[in-house]
Order: sequence, then C-alpha cells, then structure tokens
Amino acid sequence: MPPLSGPEVAKHDNKESCWVVIHGKVYDVTEFLPEHPGGMKIILKYAGKDATAEFEPIHPPDTLDKYLDKSKHLGPVDMNTVATVEEVEDPDETARQQRIKDKPLLSQCYNLMDFESVAKNVMKKTAWGYYSSAADDEITMRENHEAFHRIWFRPKILVDVKTVDFSTTMLGTKVNMPFYVTATALGKLGHPEGEVVLTRAAHKHNVVQMIPTLASCSFDEIVDARQGDQVQWLQLYVNADRAITERIVRHAEARGCKGLFITVDAPQLGRREKDMRSKFVGQGSNVQSGQDTDTSQGAARAISSFIDPSLSWADIPWFRSITKMPIVLKGVQRVEDVVKAVECGIQGVVLSNHGGRQLDFAPSAVEVLAETMPVLRSMGLENKIEVFVDGGVRRATDILKALCLGAKGVGIGRPFLYAMSAYGFDGVDRSMQLLRDELEMGMRLIGCTSIDQLNPSLIDTRNLGSHITGVPVDNLGHKVYDALATPAWKPPKTSKL
Amino acid sequence: MPPLSGPEVAKHDNKESCWVVIHGKVYDVTEFLPEHPGGMKIILKYAGKDATAEFEPIHPPDTLDKYLDKSKHLGPVDMNTVATVEEVEDPDETARQQRIKDKPLLSQCYNLMDFESVAKNVMKKTAWGYYSSAADDEITMRENHEAFHRIWFRPKILVDVKTVDFSTTMLGTKVNMPFYVTATALGKLGHPEGEVVLTRAAHKHNVVQMIPTLASCSFDEIVDARQGDQVQWLQLYVNADRAITERIVRHAEARGCKGLFITVDAPQLGRREKDMRSKFVGQGSNVQSGQDTDTSQGAARAISSFIDPSLSWADIPWFRSITKMPIVLKGVQRVEDVVKAVECGIQGVVLSNHGGRQLDFAPSAVEVLAETMPVLRSMGLENKIEVFVDGGVRRATDILKALCLGAKGVGIGRPFLYAMSAYGFDGVDRSMQLLRDELEMGMRLIGCTSIDQLNPSLIDTRNLGSHITGVPVDNLGHKVYDALATPAWKPPKTSKL
Amino acid sequence: MPPLSGPEVAKHDNKESCWVVIHGKVYDVTEFLPEHPGGMKIILKYAGKDATAEFEPIHPPDTLDKYLDKSKHLGPVDMNTVATVEEVEDPDETARQQRIKDKPLLSQCYNLMDFESVAKNVMKKTAWGYYSSAADDEITMRENHEAFHRIWFRPKILVDVKTVDFSTTMLGTKVNMPFYVTATALGKLGHPEGEVVLTRAAHKHNVVQMIPTLASCSFDEIVDARQGDQVQWLQLYVNADRAITERIVRHAEARGCKGLFITVDAPQLGRREKDMRSKFVGQGSNVQSGQDTDTSQGAARAISSFIDPSLSWADIPWFRSITKMPIVLKGVQRVEDVVKAVECGIQGVVLSNHGGRQLDFAPSAVEVLAETMPVLRSMGLENKIEVFVDGGVRRATDILKALCLGAKGVGIGRPFLYAMSAYGFDGVDRSMQLLRDELEMGMRLIGCTSIDQLNPSLIDTRNLGSHITGVPVDNLGHKVYDALATPAWKPPKTSKL
Amino acid sequence: MPPLSGPEVAKHDNKESCWVVIHGKVYDVTEFLPEHPGGMKIILKYAGKDATAEFEPIHPPDTLDKYLDKSKHLGPVDMNTVATVEEVEDPDETARQQRIKDKPLLSQCYNLMDFESVAKNVMKKTAWGYYSSAADDEITMRENHEAFHRIWFRPKILVDVKTVDFSTTMLGTKVNMPFYVTATALGKLGHPEGEVVLTRAAHKHNVVQMIPTLASCSFDEIVDARQGDQVQWLQLYVNADRAITERIVRHAEARGCKGLFITVDAPQLGRREKDMRSKFVGQGSNVQSGQDTDTSQGAARAISSFIDPSLSWADIPWFRSITKMPIVLKGVQRVEDVVKAVECGIQGVVLSNHGGRQLDFAPSAVEVLAETMPVLRSMGLENKIEVFVDGGVRRATDILKALCLGAKGVGIGRPFLYAMSAYGFDGVDRSMQLLRDELEMGMRLIGCTSIDQLNPSLIDTRNLGSHITGVPVDNLGHKVYDALATPAWKPPKTSKL
Repeated sequence: MPPLSGPEVAKHDNKESCWVVIHGKVYDVTEFLPEHPGGMKIILKYAGKDATAEFEPIHPPDTLDKYLDKSKHLGPVDMNTVATVEEVEDPDETARQQRIKDKPLLSQCYNLMDFESVAKNVMKKTAWGYYSSAADDEITMRENHEAFHRIWFRPKILVDVKTVDFSTTMLGTKVNMPFYVTATALGKLGHPEGEVVLTRAAHKHNVVQMIPTLASCSFDEIVDARQGDQVQWLQLYVNADRAITERIVRHAEARGCKGLFITVDAPQLGRREKDMRSKFVGQGSNVQSGQDTDTSQGAARAISSFIDPSLSWADIPWFRSITKMPIVLKGVQRVEDVVKAVECGIQGVVLSNHGGRQLDFAPSAVEVLAETMPVLRSMGLENKIEVFVDGGVRRATDILKALCLGAKGVGIGRPFLYAMSAYGFDGVDRSMQLLRDELEMGMRLIGCTSIDQLNPSLIDTRNLGSHITGVPVDNLGHKVYDALATPAWKPPKTSKL
Repeated sequence: MPPLSGPEVAKHDNKESCWVVIHGKVYDVTEFLPEHPGGMKIILKYAGKDATAEFEPIHPPDTLDKYLDKSKHLGPVDMNTVATVEEVEDPDETARQQRIKDKPLLSQCYNLMDFESVAKNVMKKTAWGYYSSAADDEITMRENHEAFHRIWFRPKILVDVKTVDFSTTMLGTKVNMPFYVTATALGKLGHPEGEVVLTRAAHKHNVVQMIPTLASCSFDEIVDARQGDQVQWLQLYVNADRAITERIVRHAEARGCKGLFITVDAPQLGRREKDMRSKFVGQGSNVQSGQDTDTSQGAARAISSFIDPSLSWADIPWFRSITKMPIVLKGVQRVEDVVKAVECGIQGVVLSNHGGRQLDFAPSAVEVLAETMPVLRSMGLENKIEVFVDGGVRRATDILKALCLGAKGVGIGRPFLYAMSAYGFDGVDRSMQLLRDELEMGMRLIGCTSIDQLNPSLIDTRNLGSHITGVPVDNLGHKVYDALATPAWKPPKTSKL
Repeated sequence: MPPLSGPEVAKHDNKESCWVVIHGKVYDVTEFLPEHPGGMKIILKYAGKDATAEFEPIHPPDTLDKYLDKSKHLGPVDMNTVATVEEVEDPDETARQQRIKDKPLLSQCYNLMDFESVAKNVMKKTAWGYYSSAADDEITMRENHEAFHRIWFRPKILVDVKTVDFSTTMLGTKVNMPFYVTATALGKLGHPEGEVVLTRAAHKHNVVQMIPTLASCSFDEIVDARQGDQVQWLQLYVNADRAITERIVRHAEARGCKGLFITVDAPQLGRREKDMRSKFVGQGSNVQSGQDTDTSQGAARAISSFIDPSLSWADIPWFRSITKMPIVLKGVQRVEDVVKAVECGIQGVVLSNHGGRQLDFAPSAVEVLAETMPVLRSMGLENKIEVFVDGGVRRATDILKALCLGAKGVGIGRPFLYAMSAYGFDGVDRSMQLLRDELEMGMRLIGCTSIDQLNPSLIDTRNLGSHITGVPVDNLGHKVYDALATPAWKPPKTSKL
Repeated sequence: MPPLSGPEVAKHDNKESCWVVIHGKVYDVTEFLPEHPGGMKIILKYAGKDATAEFEPIHPPDTLDKYLDKSKHLGPVDMNTVATVEEVEDPDETARQQRIKDKPLLSQCYNLMDFESVAKNVMKKTAWGYYSSAADDEITMRENHEAFHRIWFRPKILVDVKTVDFSTTMLGTKVNMPFYVTATALGKLGHPEGEVVLTRAAHKHNVVQMIPTLASCSFDEIVDARQGDQVQWLQLYVNADRAITERIVRHAEARGCKGLFITVDAPQLGRREKDMRSKFVGQGSNVQSGQDTDTSQGAARAISSFIDPSLSWADIPWFRSITKMPIVLKGVQRVEDVVKAVECGIQGVVLSNHGGRQLDFAPSAVEVLAETMPVLRSMGLENKIEVFVDGGVRRATDILKALCLGAKGVGIGRPFLYAMSAYGFDGVDRSMQLLRDELEMGMRLIGCTSIDQLNPSLIDTRNLGSHITGVPVDNLGHKVYDALATPAWKPPKTSKL
C-alpha cells in the first residue's frame, strides 16, 4: 500500500471523520473521539494534521496498539505533505526560552530544592503542572516534607567516624545508598529522552530504579538502557483486563526485573487542580472567545482510565501465582494494612501517599512508619517484611530519619525529575552526588558508621503526629501592632535596609 | 381611589413627613423612622422617591405588612411620575461591571473556593459584606474550615471500590449526597432570583434545601419552586409574638415541609464589622462632609429585631404541640445541650455556630461533634437523635471527616451563595457536581463503598481540639535573619524568579 | 520681687549656668543637670528659654517641688520677653497634622483596635512610642492579648437572655460593667487635658478609675474631676523615702480613694526600646552630625528613678498601719505569691505583667489566673481575696473569659488612652459603649444573664498554657512551592485580583 | 639570597608553575594546587601576584608552615615590583562603602540584634556568608534562639532587689557576668585586628574568652593581648596528627590557659550553603562566561581538612595525660553523653550544636539542658561536672533561663563578632554593657539578687520540647478570605495607613 498523502488526510479534519498523524502513520480516531479521556477537543485541534509532538510525551508508546482497533491503523503517510498545526508566537514560550539560556550553572545547585527552583522556571507550564501538582489543596504533598521537620536528632559524639558506609540491601539487592528512584509517569515531559536518563544515573550511583507503568519510554526501552548487573523493579497499575496485567508482569520478570511493586493507593487517579489549570490556560482561544468547554481533567486522568478500581486483597494470591518476583504493595497508609500484608505473605510495603497526588489529608509516610514499626516489633514481625517509604524526601537527614525509624530504604521521585528537567543526566547525577555528600556528613554527625547502627534512640519524634493549624490570625491586632525596628541609617528614611 | 402622583409623593421628603414608594405603592413611614433598625438616614435618602431597588434585597417580602400599620399603606402611585434617586457615577461600580465581563469561565472553577474568589470580585461591596462577614474578629468563621485541616485520614487500601454509593437518609428522606443546602438570608443580594435558584439546584442533585426565615423570596415562592417529590425543611427564627411563629410553622407543615429547624444560637443577631464597614463606605457623602452619623449596624441587625431572646428549653413542648414535623435544634454548641435535646425528645440537632456570625471563639461544629458522639455512644443515645453539622465545609474530604465522626449529614451555606452570585443556577449546579466528583474520589481513596462504612477508625483527630496561637513573632530576630536563596540566574540580579 | 526678664534668663544657657522657664517661672537647674534621668542634653536644648511644652506632658506637676530645692526656684519671669526654642519645620509633623484632618469619623470605629489604628497615626511619634512600647522584644505585650485567643467558649443555648445584667462589685463598689480604667502614666502625651478625660468617661459609664502615681495631671486635679459618688482607687509606686509614700497614701484616703493598689512588678522601670528609639529619632541633629550622644533611656526611665527596688513583703504591715483602704497588690505573677498575699491579709491582687512593659516572657495575666483559681479553690481561699487581671483586653469576649475563670474584674489601660488620644472624651465614651454592646451580645450568646453565672464550664482552656514557636520556616521548600491559584480572569494576566 | 623580583615571580602564573606572594614572601604552590581545600581556581587567580589580602583572613597564620614543605618557601620578594590583582570596580563594594558611611550611631544599638542588622549591611558578602551561615536549611541555627522563646518566666514579687549580683564562677574562675566569649573562627573577616578585639572587651567586663583553633590571629597574639589576671580557655580541633595536637595543648597550658575545650561535634566541618553561595557570586566571571567550575565548598571546608574524624572516647585518657587543664567537651548533644563524660572524669561539657553549623535538626542546647539536669540530679551528679550551653543567646533573659535550668554559664559567639564587625572594640564593649543592663533588669524582675537563687521553679518549660511545623497553609482558603480592615481615612482610598 502506498503511503497516504497529506491533502488526503487533511480532509478528515472534523468530528464526522477525524484522522490524525502520529510518528508518520495515520489513524482514524473518529469513533474514539467521545471516549478520549483527555476530551474530544484536544484531538480535534490536530484533526487531519500531524499530532506527534502533542501526543508523544503524555501517551505511553503502546497506547495506539492497546486502545485503537487495528482496522483504524491506516498506514504510513508522506510526511512532506502533512500539515502541522501552526503554533502562534507565544510570549510565555519566548520568555521560557530566554530563561533556559539564563539558567544557573549546574554547580550552583547545592541541594535538591535548587533543582526544583530551576525546573520550575525552565519547564513548560503544562509539564510543570503535571509534575508538581497534587490532590485538592496539596496539603499532604507539602506535609510529606514538613513531617521530617518534626523529627529531630539526638546525635552521639566521640564516635570514630573516619569511615562511614551507607550501603545497604533492598529485596536482596546490594545498593550503594539507602534510596531508590521511584516510579514517576511521563518522563518525556521533563526531558526528551525520558526515563532512560534516570536509568543511567541509577547505574552510575548503584541504586535501584523502579520502572513506571506510565512511562514515556516503553518498558523495553528502559530495560534496554540497563548496564551491567543493574537492578530494576516494576511499578504496576493493575489493568481491569487481568490478561494485560499478566502479560506485563511475566514480561517484566522475563526481562530481569527483581521486584513487583503493585500500586494500591490509586483505584482512581487523583484530581489535581494545578495540572487542570495549567492545561486550561493553554487553551487560550476558548478563554478569549468566552466559549465554554468540557474541562480537561489534566494529564493524570487522561492516561489512567484503564486502572482497575476493584483491585483487592483477594487478588494477591493470583499475583503470587503469575510471578516469582518479590511482591511489594506500594501505597500502604495504615499499620493495620501492613500487618495484613505480612499475613498475606507479601515481601514488602511502600508506605506512601503517592506524593500527595491522591487523597489530600492522607498522612505522610514517615508518620505511618513511626506508627507501624513499634507494632511490627511488638508482634515480632519486623523482619518478615521490608518497609519502604516515599514522599517528601529532600535531604539526607530525611533519609537518615526514616532509617532510624526502621525503614529499609526510601524512594525519591520528583527531585530526580526536576534535576533531569533542568539539567538532564548531569542534573540527576549531581543530585545523587549531593545526597551522597549529605549522607556522609549526616552519618558522621549523628555518630554512626553503618546503616545498621541507625535506630530510634537517635531521634526525637514526640511531635511527629502533631497536626496543628493555629488559631486564625488576629488581623486587626496584628495590623495595629507597630513592630520593633532595627536602628535607622543616615540620612534617616532614605536608606532602606 | 386613583393612584397618587409622583409630585404629590415628592413633597413628603423629610423627617416631618416621609413617604416612600415600593413596588408601585406609597407608604407613610414618618412614625416608623426612629424605629427603623437600619437607621433613619437610609430611609430619608429615598424620602418622596422610589425606594424599591434599595428595599427589596434586604427585606423579606412581607415586611411592610408585618411592621407597618395598614393605615400607612397609602395605595398605588403612577410610576411614570415618581422620582428616583439619581445615583452618581460610581467608579467602583464601573470597575465591578468590567470585572463581571471579564470573569473566569464557569469551567475554570474547580472547587468551592474558586466560586468564592469570583463572587468576591463581581458582587456589590455591601452584598459581599453581608455574606462574607462574621462576628468580631472572624476567628470562629475561619476556624470552622481550619478545624477540618486538623483531621487526617487513615485510609484503607485494596478494597474493591468499583462502585461507591454515597446516598444516605436525613430525617427519613433519601438523598443522593450527604449534604443539604442550609438556610442563609437575603439571597437576592447575590442573585436577582434569590433562593429559588438554590431550590432548583437542590432538586437536580436530590439534596434537601432548608428554607430560611429571612429569605429574599417569600416562603411560598420557594415552596412553589419545588419539583416532583423534592424535600424542603424550614429554618425558624422564633418571633417574640408566638402567634406569628405558630402561623409560620403551621403554614410550612401544610405546604409540605418535612423538618422544623429552630435556630437556637441567635437570641440576638451578631455584630459583623465587615458588614457594618461595607455599608458605611457606601455613605460616602457623610464621610466627605465630615458629618457624623448614627452608624448603621449592618444588614443583620436591620432585619432581625423581631427575634425573641427569651426563647428557652421551656418552649420546646409548645413547638411539639403545634407541629408534627420532626424538630431539630440548629446551633447547638456543647455536648451537654445535645444530651438535653435527646431528653426533650428532639429528633435532631445541628451542631453549628451560625457560620461564625454570632459568637466569636465559639468552637467549630466538627470539634463539638468529636466531643459529642463518644458521649452519646457511651450513653447509648447515638441512634436517638440525628446529628448534623454545618460551618466551613468546602471539600468532600470535609464531609467525609464529619461522617466518619458520626454526623448524619452536613449543611453547606455560603459556598452555594457564592456560586449563585457568580454564575447563577449553573454555578450552584457545578458546585454540587464538583462535590459529587470529590466525594466519589474520596470514598474510593479511603476505601469505603457506602456511607455506613465511614467510622472513626478512618481518621486521626488527635489535634482537633488544639487551639494554638504561637509565641508572638520575634520580629528583630526574623528581620536580621538572612534567608537561604535559590541559585542566581544570569545576568546576576536582573532576573527575578 | 519683680519678675525676671527674658534677656536676663537667656544668659544662663549653658552647662555652667543653666536656667529654664516652666509655666512662667524660672528654675536654676545647673546642679541638677547631671542627675536628670532623661539626660543632660535635653535640658540644655531649652537652657535660657521656655521649656514648658517639653516639660509638661512627661513630668508630674509636683516634680519641681519634689526634686528641686526651693533655693533654685527663682520666681516669675515676664513671659513676653522669654525666648522659645524655634522648632524647625518638621515634615513628619506636617504630615501628622494632615492625618489629623483626615482621620476617620468616630462612628467608623467599631472596636478597640480601631481606636489604636487611628491613634497610631495621629499621635506624636514620641507619645506613641511611650504608650505603645514594651519590654525587650515585646513578646509578653502581644502574648497578653493572644492568650485570650487560646480560650474558646462552650456556649449554652435556649436560655432566656432577654434581660442581661453585667453589673458587679469590686472591693465593695457596685459598678455597671466588670472592668475598670487601670492606671497609665503621662496622659497628657495623648490629650492636652490628660487623665481627667478618663475620669469623666468612667463616671458616665459607672466604672472605677485607678489614679496613676505618674499621671500628667496632679492627683488632686483628678480627684476634683470626680462627679457624684464616683469611685477612684490609687495606684502607688513606692518611694524610697517612705515619708513621701505615707503622705501620698494618707492624702488619697482623705480625698476619698477606695482602694490602694501597690505596684509590685516594677522595682525598676523597664527598658522599652521602641520608646528609646522614638526619642532618638527626635534628636535628628545629632544623627545628622554624626556626633554620638548619651542615649536617653526613654520616658519610662526618666520619670521613675524614685521607685524603691527594696520594697518587699516585710513592708506590707506598715502599709496596713497607715491606711484603712483595702490594699491590693498590682503585678502578681505566680500563684505562690497570690497565696502569700492571702496569708498577709491582702484584700486583692491584680495579676498583671504591667502591660508587657517590664519583664519580657512574663506570662499573661489570664494564664496566671487559670493557674491560680483552682489552687485557691482547693485551699478554700477563693473568697478571701479579690483577683483582678489586666493586660491585652480588647474585646468583651476577653472580659467574659477572664470572669469565667474567676476574675472579679479586668483592668483596661492602653485602649482608653488610644481612644482618648484619637478622639478625646468622645473616643473614650464610645469605646466603653462598644464594650457594653459587646458584653450584652456576649452574655446572651454564651447563655448567661448575670455575672455570677459565669463559670469555668463555659470555656475551653486546654491550650492556654501552650507556648509554641514552630520549627523555623523551611525557606527553600516554601520558595520553590508553587501555590494553588484561583481561576484567571480575562484577559489573562492583566487582571490582578 | 637577594629578594626575588616581581617580574620573575609573575612568570609563574599558571597551573604548570604557580607562585604566590604572601606577606612579602614567595611560595611555590604548584604541587599543592590540586590539594587546596578551597579549590585550585581561587589560587590561580593570584598566580604570580600578591595574594596576601585574600589569603590572610581565612587562613590561620601558621598555615604555610604547616601545610607547605619548607623547600617551597622561596624567600622574600621586592614588594615594589610585585603585581597585584586589579580588582574591577564593583558596584556592590561601592554601595557597601556608602553604607559604612551611613551606618547608625553606636548609641542607636539597643540590643544584640541591632548589631547584627548593622553588620549584615557593612560586612563583605563573603565574610557575612561565613559568619551567618549554618548547616543545610539553617533550621537548627534559628531554633537555637527560638527555643528560648518557649521558656517563660514565673517571676517572684516583693523581693528586696536593691542590690543584685550576677557574678559567678566558671571552672574556678570568678567572672562578673554569667557568660563567656566562645570560640569563633576567622575574626579578621569581620575586623582587621581580629580576635584580640574580643580579648580586650572580655578583659574590660571580666569575662572569660575562649581562644579558637581557627583564629585569624595567632594563638600567641591572642594570649599576648591578655591584661592583668585575665583568664582564657583554649578551644581545640583535634588534629589527625596527635603530635601537633599535643604541641598545641602543652603550649596553651604553658601560656596560662585555664581550660581545654575539645570540640566533639565536628568530625567533619559542615556544608553551609549560604557560605558556598556567597563565594560563588564572587566568581562573577565564571557565571558570565557560562563556564562551569569546581565549586568551592565555602570557607569552613577550606580551613578544616586537618580535623580528625576518628576522635573518640578512647582518646580522653591521652588528653588527661598531656595536660592539667580542666577538660571540657564542647558540642555534647544528648544526656547519655553527659553522663558518659562524668564517668570519664571530664570536668565540664558545653551543650552545643556548633551554632547550628554542623547537623541540621540537632536540638538546641537549652533543650538538651532541660533534659540533662534532671537526670544528673536524679543520679546525684549535678555537682560533678560544670554544664555550659551556647547557641542562640541574644538577651539576658536567655541567659537567665539557661541558668534557671542549671547551666553554669553560657557562651556567646556570633553576636560579639557582629558587634566587632560593625563597630570594633566599642561595639563589643557596648554589647556587653547592654547585656549587663539587661541582666540587672532581669534579675530584679524575676525577684533574684544572686545567681545561686536561680532555679527551675522560676520558669515554665512545658513546651520547650515542642517541634511543630503546622499543617501546610490553606492557600486557596486564605486567598479568598477578606481580612478585616481598620477604618478608612479621608479621602477614601488615597490615604494608605
């Protein structure tokens, strides 16, 4: 069959007949239009034209094969003749390009927040919206890091800390540092190469990478990027069609994955208003015309409609039957469910609230950890299961606090995405190196030379469970209060310091 | 009698003889002047002229019949000849009209706060002042929502949540969602159609509407707007003249109301300074002239002088004698009074502080709820009475928290007023739809599929009762502290990010 | 002796011979120069000239008689010939005069903070500095009001509150409202008539006035301003020369004072940096010239050098011996000392930290009260002594909270000074009227009809004793966080709401 | 050997051969380049030129002798012929010079924060960066002072406080005030004369000075500055080469030092990002060119590579063997280690977290003190060891609180550096005088006349251990809230007060 021609394709530019071009191939999506999780509107914008640039970063590579019947795959097209959507000059984009030129040197980034401050300013608004957003008022997302600030150290002195070793093992794998790269979706929103950048950095620092179901790169691309005996785990969203799930799991095991992390905190993916708002602003023409629209629900909803909300404890034996990989439940949020997991023969849990992206006012993982470990110890179960945590980790002190409480390791997600978005591989590499430097310093300063020495007596968690809002501010009282000033400079009033 | 003429009416434009025109009829209010709760001044502004536009939104429709002797009803006037107050061009009003044109699309509103942000900018200042104001320093009003932020979830995982059902019953009525539209006064301040807009939205979503005593629409207009088997309740301010109260209650029952909610937290309506101040600014001419005035006490005081401050427990049997409707006390604020209500055979209580509009430093309803339910359970009374709460509900998670504690349902007031003020029926409709979406998400994410599964083990309320102000800020110390910065951009100092 | 002439006086304009004119009389202060608590510099500015305007507001009227030997009183001068210090045009003063013209109408003040906001802008900087300043970082001063915000109500409903009576008695005197005007120094800084303005307002509202030792008006002027059977108390700073103290006490009793309040929290008057800084700025010429100066220590130190730091419990019997007035210790700050006072036969205590002007981090009176009353009750002493509190009272709810805890009455100081400074008598009158309105509302809303019904079960004080600073802010984390926004208006980005 | 000539030296201006001139002598640092803790780059900037000005303030005087082989000391050079680095006109520096001219008069500084506010604006950015920076997010540094704000007084009244005496003893030395000047590095960054300025001030006020290992002045210069029977202690960083340490200790004892304070909280000196960032900005050319650099790790790392991370409890007997000075461990952070110190026969401990410069989230010294003293008392050890604290002391009330808890004395570091940097000796003198004034006031106001009367019953420490972050802010809720305003001024809207 000869390739289709652009003009031919261009005729199908409406609701009645809608073709789009992706990666040089034509697809008839007319019937799919009303089912599109991201809404009909965004597809129609590209009807009869090349949609690759818009399609790629937010759709896993096998999307078309999975969701569109083969009969709708119309074959190749002569790309020289295909129309593209003319993007109007966007002053926001121009400003962003200038910011990319002016961005700080990588060596000016001294901590993980620094990468985030750069990423925030060099990423596309929609990409930033997807990565940075969380559920409802984003209380839990922020609490995740703040909770660490309610844990204080009780450092030991006069310990010989000349040599400190922070290697450990996770699910039997020896790693150089007690963290892993946790699964995060849509890596190409931040960097054109996507998740394989993280694969390479994880290899360099010998830490585990967890491969996301909703990656921008295909699963095989990410596995192919593995070097040497590098270890990867698979994060799994369970499909309502269990045959698909089984295929994914068996394939992952066959390709050498060493752990199966089943996400259990996302029967439905969260509404994330910052994400929704960032998309909306992109649809400027509607706003201008005053014409109302079916709101897109943000990238998260668009890519996740397949997730099965009926997944339950009853499914666990089936998973056990289809794989020999250690099974870990990702997203456990209360001690009762950790105990239940042990009883089900699960090898591990990740205490997690999905980076605050699912249920607002879900507790931080580290608070659940502090509730969980004493219970496990009192039941003699602390060695029956590996307990991981993720969410809000930004400093090595955060990692050390979690390990003092009893965590086997911590997952880090967004910070590496931000480092990648700002500086690519070098950014991720440096962010891991910074954590390494901080870990060395932190171990020495609390007086420990190896991970197994970390224990609860080294921290003060009395206020970890405190969730205080404070009495609402006395606005009138504060307004009339005349705050103390530092001494005035000469000439009075002109010098403002 | 032929209609009066405008010029005739216009002669009575002073303190000695003061007539006003309302809805085409003339009233002699000379003797009433000193008794006007809103002050003499505002009436004199319209003396001899048409006062309808000013009168209507803040006076219930039967005000004139109730408070002005029939002899002062002077009959119709030829409206073509009546003078109106010439409103000077008001730059504030011009700016407001522009904001109305520029307001965000309805589909950009993703949560209940978004409606409030729009309403704040498109409503008249006085209307906003009346709706948004609360008692004294408005501490309790803000605490109402903040209190929910001190309740955190303990979510369950791996529950089959494919189907979630959040229907429930209230006072025997089956409703689709566990909230009701609570009574709020003066709906026409926000929208020309007033409370019937809420009636229609309540019908669409199958939730109960509580009809306010101080509605802008008449009681019958609101009942007439009912569709199908829609259920309404009556909110009652008890009149010092019990005959009037009896008439109101019997009429409501006759018209099909299914519950009588007696307001018990308002023996006197609150001083609301924001409301007072918003009116004052309106009286610009006085401010300009430097002439002092009898201050208006705001809309609340103006419309509420009839409320009987002697209402007491001793009146309850009488209410029971005049109606078969279930009786609910609205505004209970301590567990002792809930127990007393059970003992009096009351069918329900609304734990409420009147949206923070009455007593500042009254506790939030949800805090009183957390104190109340364990006592009821320990006394075996938890099924003897239905416990509702209102105040500060903005998110479905707020609703779920209250239900986990044991509430039968929650009342929502201001948010629907704001949605109505900003976008009319469509706004209220969307606000209810958003709550529905959030409820579905929330139920799934805490692992519950029906309302009866909600229980206290799903939440952490340890700090609900904490009322902390914090040590006053160390101004000098904070001023001299040089906060950490993120990396500088090139060229140094010109890029401000 | 004929009056001295101005030119004659003008010769004595230096350190070697320094005469000043005050109220038409000449004083030789040469020898007194080095002893002046306010420093030599400020006197030399007026050497050979009329110093009345500077002298009067910060010196009690009998200062010259008390501190300057009669031989230095040189007699009258012909005022027409006396030089005055030419005040240079001061742009600050010009701006202040404009603000006085533009100040809000009295009727726009709805609460006590409103008066303070006006006073802050119409008072002279030095006067504001003296009134508003407090010790060190002014933590305690602000805590005084904030502490009330940690007390919440538990209101009763369905009480017949048609008639509420908030009269009570203090030291046997029947008063209309449960507060008194407490002693504050230097009333003429705020208003040219000084403390007698407060006397008149106290009479109008039938509350007690406490006469300050450091008044701008003389004691007798204040007593002379009394009307009818108005009651006054005397506040006493104890002089190192007990003969002077005895004379003052006996005179006060003879003139009808009904209570002796001995200040016990001020063995040395506080350093108040805002006060010091406000004076310094006044000495602009020094700042300009770069010439260093002996810093004035502010008005407080200047007027208080006579206070005896050796005052102790051993002195109490002596006070008992010289007066029959009830004796009250003002400035008690711990329960142990209240018990001791009872044991000494003292009739009352004022729990007070001197408005935060003495020791920073002294607890608020209301916190000490909550600690004190249960101890007194457990010892059966609660009726042996009247317990007053002052500090931070701004709302009737503050008063009601203190009375619920067991206080007999509360003292209010600064708010009346601010009302007086902003609007004179009318301001103080209105401020008391506002408190009356708030009291009526508050009593009704907590369900009490008389003062004796107020009791601890009506309040929640669980967090009264909490002194939390919060973990220092995570500046980087907060800086990189991208807060949620409300919907954007059209055209995007130009509308800032 | 005749002096070298400038042109001869100038040839060695590159990586292959790098000579620098310091204090008129030439050094060949070619081989040392890669080892320089501060990075190669900063040395190369001065290659072939005079580096004295850059070198001096951040290197102890014996650095070259210690770290550079004698063979590389090339001897004197004719300074008239040596090139200096031409500093480009720096607008920041010009502005700083202007600020120095305009700085407030010394007499305008009323408290220790005032000096800091001046220093912050007159110091070089790098110097300020070094002094003011701390570990990670600088949480602990700020907590150090904030912790004192969680301690409140319970003052006694009616104590004869005419005479108050706040002299005490520390390690047997009688001192006039209960604080000492603690060791801080690199005094010449703040003042050209360096640490001897502090020596002179300590003498004037009769308090002890602790001499830092990392002083800018040499040890002997500081000892030589001693007057009369002035007492000094030695702060010691322990060198990996114990022979060097022994030499230092024996020399200090021989020169009359009366205490050996071994730093135990710094096996590795902290990463201080503000310090790192302040240096980076100085390297403007790199930033401009976009060329990446090996980041300097700040002054702290540059000067501390010799510190031995293997120092442990096992070393204590050896220290005992080489000196008769009392041994004090500086940097103890948990009660267990205080008890251990007593068991080792140590004479004292300084509870300290190194001014927050080492481990972020280390507890404040005063919190550790409150945990420690009751344990010591319960074990009968409270008189076996002297317990000092440092960190965050800014007010005499801070000192009194620590002494009430049981501290023997408190160390003050940064505040004196800031006073010195802003005003030299006069600044330090005044800062000590201000503390003296505050101490007198504080002692009187809590009712104590001597240090031994200070005890735990005078303070309330219930919340000292509270580490609360607060629920993350409800941004939408707060944004839509319309805060109460104070009354408007005439003409409306133009007056902003």
